[in-house]
Amino acid sequence: MPKIIDRIKAFQKDNADKKFFSFEYFPPKTEAGVRNLQTRLDKMCSINPLWIDVTWGAGGSTCDTTLEICESALECCGVDVLMHLTCTNTTTESLRVVLERCKEKGLCNILALRGDPPKDQENWVATEGGFNNASDLVKFIRAEFGDYFCIGVAAYPEGHIENDDREQDTQYFVDKVNAGADFAITQLFYDNKTYLDYCKKVQGMGVPKDFCIFPGIMPIQSYGGFTRMTEFCKTFVPQEIKDALEPIQNDDVAVKEYGIELGVKMARELLLGGCPGIHIYTLNLETSAMSIVRELGLVDDSKASRGKPWKGSNVRNRQKEDVRPIFWAQRGRSYIERTRAWDDFPNGRFGSIESPAYGEFQYSGWSGVSAKEKEARKEQWQFEGVAGLSKTFVDFLKGENNVKTLPWCPERPGDETTCLRKQLIKLCNAGYLTVNSQPRVNGAISTDPLFGWGPPRGVVYQKAYVEFFCSPEGLDKIAKGFTKEKYPEVTYIAVSKDGTVKSNEDVDELAITAVTWGVFPGQEVQQPTVVDFHSFMAWKDEAFTLWNDWYEAMPTGDANRELLNNVRDTWYLVNIVDNNFLCGDLFVNMGEMVTGLAK
Amino acid sequence: MPKIIDRIKAFQKDNADKKFFSFEYFPPKTEAGVRNLQTRLDKMCSINPLWIDVTWGAGGSTCDTTLEICESALECCGVDVLMHLTCTNTTTESLRVVLERCKEKGLCNILALRGDPPKDQENWVATEGGFNNASDLVKFIRAEFGDYFCIGVAAYPEGHIENDDREQDTQYFVDKVNAGADFAITQLFYDNKTYLDYCKKVQGMGVPKDFCIFPGIMPIQSYGGFTRMTEFCKTFVPQEIKDALEPIQNDDVAVKEYGIELGVKMARELLLGGCPGIHIYTLNLETSAMSIVRELGLVDDSKASRGKPWKGSNVRNRQKEDVRPIFWAQRGRSYIERTRAWDDFPNGRFGSIESPAYGEFQYSGWSGVSAKEKEARKEQWQFEGVAGLSKTFVDFLKGENNVKTLPWCPERPGDETTCLRKQLIKLCNAGYLTVNSQPRVNGAISTDPLFGWGPPRGVVYQKAYVEFFCSPEGLDKIAKGFTKEKYPEVTYIAVSKDGTVKSNEDVDELAITAVTWGVFPGQEVQQPTVVDFHSFMAWKDEAFTLWNDWYEAMPTGDANRELLNNVRDTWYLVNIVDNNFLCGDLFVNMGEMVTGLAK
Repeated sequence: MPKIIDRIKAFQKDNADKKFFSFEYFPPKTEAGVRNLQTRLDKMCSINPLWIDVTWGAGGSTCDTTLEICESALECCGVDVLMHLTCTNTTTESLRVVLERCKEKGLCNILALRGDPPKDQENWVATEGGFNNASDLVKFIRAEFGDYFCIGVAAYPEGHIENDDREQDTQYFVDKVNAGADFAITQLFYDNKTYLDYCKKVQGMGVPKDFCIFPGIMPIQSYGGFTRMTEFCKTFVPQEIKDALEPIQNDDVAVKEYGIELGVKMARELLLGGCPGIHIYTLNLETSAMSIVRELGLVDDSKASRGKPWKGSNVRNRQKEDVRPIFWAQRGRSYIERTRAWDDFPNGRFGSIESPAYGEFQYSGWSGVSAKEKEARKEQWQFEGVAGLSKTFVDFLKGENNVKTLPWCPERPGDETTCLRKQLIKLCNAGYLTVNSQPRVNGAISTDPLFGWGPPRGVVYQKAYVEFFCSPEGLDKIAKGFTKEKYPEVTYIAVSKDGTVKSNEDVDELAITAVTWGVFPGQEVQQPTVVDFHSFMAWKDEAFTLWNDWYEAMPTGDANRELLNNVRDTWYLVNIVDNNFLCGDLFVNMGEMVTGLAK
Repeated sequence: MPKIIDRIKAFQKDNADKKFFSFEYFPPKTEAGVRNLQTRLDKMCSINPLWIDVTWGAGGSTCDTTLEICESALECCGVDVLMHLTCTNTTTESLRVVLERCKEKGLCNILALRGDPPKDQENWVATEGGFNNASDLVKFIRAEFGDYFCIGVAAYPEGHIENDDREQDTQYFVDKVNAGADFAITQLFYDNKTYLDYCKKVQGMGVPKDFCIFPGIMPIQSYGGFTRMTEFCKTFVPQEIKDALEPIQNDDVAVKEYGIELGVKMARELLLGGCPGIHIYTLNLETSAMSIVRELGLVDDSKASRGKPWKGSNVRNRQKEDVRPIFWAQRGRSYIERTRAWDDFPNGRFGSIESPAYGEFQYSGWSGVSAKEKEARKEQWQFEGVAGLSKTFVDFLKGENNVKTLPWCPERPGDETTCLRKQLIKLCNAGYLTVNSQPRVNGAISTDPLFGWGPPRGVVYQKAYVEFFCSPEGLDKIAKGFTKEKYPEVTYIAVSKDGTVKSNEDVDELAITAVTWGVFPGQEVQQPTVVDFHSFMAWKDEAFTLWNDWYEAMPTGDANRELLNNVRDTWYLVNIVDNNFLCGDLFVNMGEMVTGLAK
């Protein structure tokens, strides 16, 4: 995991005109809250913040939570992580222990802060055997760990609330820079001029011109929250903002919208003024932060910039990972968790790990699900009988009747699914409940906005793939249709919950099949996605267990609960690969097969 | 390395109507003779005999030579090897030592023979502590090594010369079969009826019908040799053969031609009669044996049946080898020898071996070259000045003026070179002396007779590649032409004998490039041929040293000797890869570049 400062420099070198953004979070107090935040992080990291940071739960149990969230984000979200660390209620010895743990985990970015006063104190007091200010902490990290850590510090454009002496306060900042800080993030402000003046001022006091001070923006989420926060921080609020908020203060939606509008306005001015990026205090909320960076045009939705078709992990031992089974395409976090114990990761060929032992799937049911999400699920997944079940899958594909997720598909259908939508709807209507698929691609350029991945001037390929649940009778049609005689290039594998396997191949002789690969200038052929029998067996446990998510959404005693149990216990999970990537017609052939319309 | 008997069974199962052939050799007495034989083996194994066998140099130093040739064939020719072993002049203890060594090397096929009497004895005598006959040897191998070895034995359709009792002699054969032999090869004969009667007879005595007794055919190479051999072996020669040879006995060429004709006639009759294959006593000679199997249609010249674009090694530790650098495409034996010390072989990706350490190139100069080959080289490689040098390369490409080989190209240009011939001739005429090349292929079926390899229903690809020597001035044109700005997808690397490197890329950042790859049903992507900078550096030492072969061909004091030294010491070896396998036009672009004709 590289240092954030190196990442910034590389980013600026490669994209002189491109700006970046980063997101800040705080550690939730409950376990369910942490699980919620993790789901949110997965989603927010998918738009590629340059880093995320997590505040330090000063001295309490939440500092363990901070470490846990940071480590999990690093491992599962493929993002750089900046961990806050404060001097509050702590000794140099315990700071050393924390930093050693960070080093061990590969967390190499620290935001060094003095921190708020301890809860029972009104004014700041240093702990015995601890530090009195952030520059001491910076010096300590540099003295004890040399250049291992990239160190960020805080900047207070309006001065620190505890210090009325602005000159001394600014000098404190210069001291932190001189002590070895790599960059700074400002406290929140609502007046860009304050920020710009501050930057000029510290430069006059010896801070180098190229030392980055990132503006921290806190989108207004609610009138009450905004008022409390600005009062607590003694933040200057320009009259124009007060005037805008005053008439809408009781309209939560309008306040939120204004918050986004203001955030975009402030950020745009700062970025045009030369700031390389903006830092957003998300307060663990998704909508405002995501909307602001989207409106600023900082999100690259094109898939072309993907290094791989899937988002990798950022921990050191997974750096070389460059191939994964397709089954977890929509459940990356689960894949990472279930392969956490692996010593090595497949490099180029999945076969290099002999019989990979997947960890058990840890099903946490509805316990970590937010109340809002619970309601959403109940609303989405109501149905009547098998036909209703099929219709729910169709609604998901169509984006109708509020069906935005399925237990196996936590996000709306991607563009690749959308381009197969008509065919998939046909299959779902016929009782083949599709959960994963990709079309055949016989050579798209690697910068193709839909199918592209990897470096420029490459050519990428895919074999058609579909995965679905179907009844034993449904499977019979597949088995009769996709015989090796008639379709020598099509391979299907079906498995039931209890592990009964059916296939048109001898599964003991099945090798690993590459279903996504790319050819690039000056490289070996990359094959980041594969279908492999042993992984499929590991995935089926997870896939069948996820029916329980649906079961929970049905009212107790509902007849459909029984139906869902029956589906889980007797249906098959099936995957089909069409090896003919040149001109195979998997979806059309299968559609005709299952609807009984002969060619 | 599988057992020959398993190979035969698999072969018969896969190709019920297809017949096979095998070649027998004897160990030469001199080191130069051994080197000659190795070159011949490389060539003869390229047409895929099902196995080769080497006779046992009974008790003398030549038994070490037998082992050496067998091991080398196994390692370098990618062929199954059947080693003869006799009881002559040996004890059970020394036989055990030999068999242990075979086991260690993976030589698992033994032809168990009693052997000729010791040289100083007229009649057979068993060595003290040794065996008296072949069935004892078979029993010993089975008792000591269980089923590890596949054991062949000899059959004497005309009876063993030392035994006038035909019944007893046939019983000896049945004893060998009962002792655990897997198959048999007959002594030479010239009357098919003798063979067919013999097979029937032993079957009547209990030898199973499916026990294979392969007919051994010794093509008549010269009248004198044939007469001596048939007299020594007391072989029955039908009158019709005597009548045919009598009038041509002094015409060596005619005798040889008759030998081929007779061999084809006998073999065809045997194969049509149900023999699964024929065994040829080559007497270490190439022409007759190769002609016979070609005329019988037993040679599959289509490249489509290749498992890989190159012929692999058959030793155990190289079984998983599935990628090689392109540089040794025409010098496979050298590649194997220089990588002999590797513990592991790249599996799928060449990058899996970090900084492979190539062994030194052992240049043996002209010392192992046969007199005939020396004469051929001198005749082929005469030239006058740089223009004459270019012309020799052109002659090689055209197959004119008897230029059949070059130091870097021991065989005539392959079909892939031929399809680029016009473009390559243009380059050679312009002073770019090409030694290796392949055209771009954007997806050919894997059964394509020219470009195909690997299992059926696959699709294979190639990037255009060319490798040549050129003068420093010639390299300037390449460097000015193939700039990264104009040809972002073309990479060249040039190196001089002293190791000066020039490239349009930063060579420290060059990764490994796949130049041949294939996509197959139910498999990961195969990439058997790569271009890699470190391997190129190892190859360049070999490539520059091979100029010495040419130097030796020039008369002492010849002015062209100086020219060749100059070329070796100041010219560059260059390789160029065009990464645009979809529509790049490497050869046309380069042709225009070096001849100065702008597009």
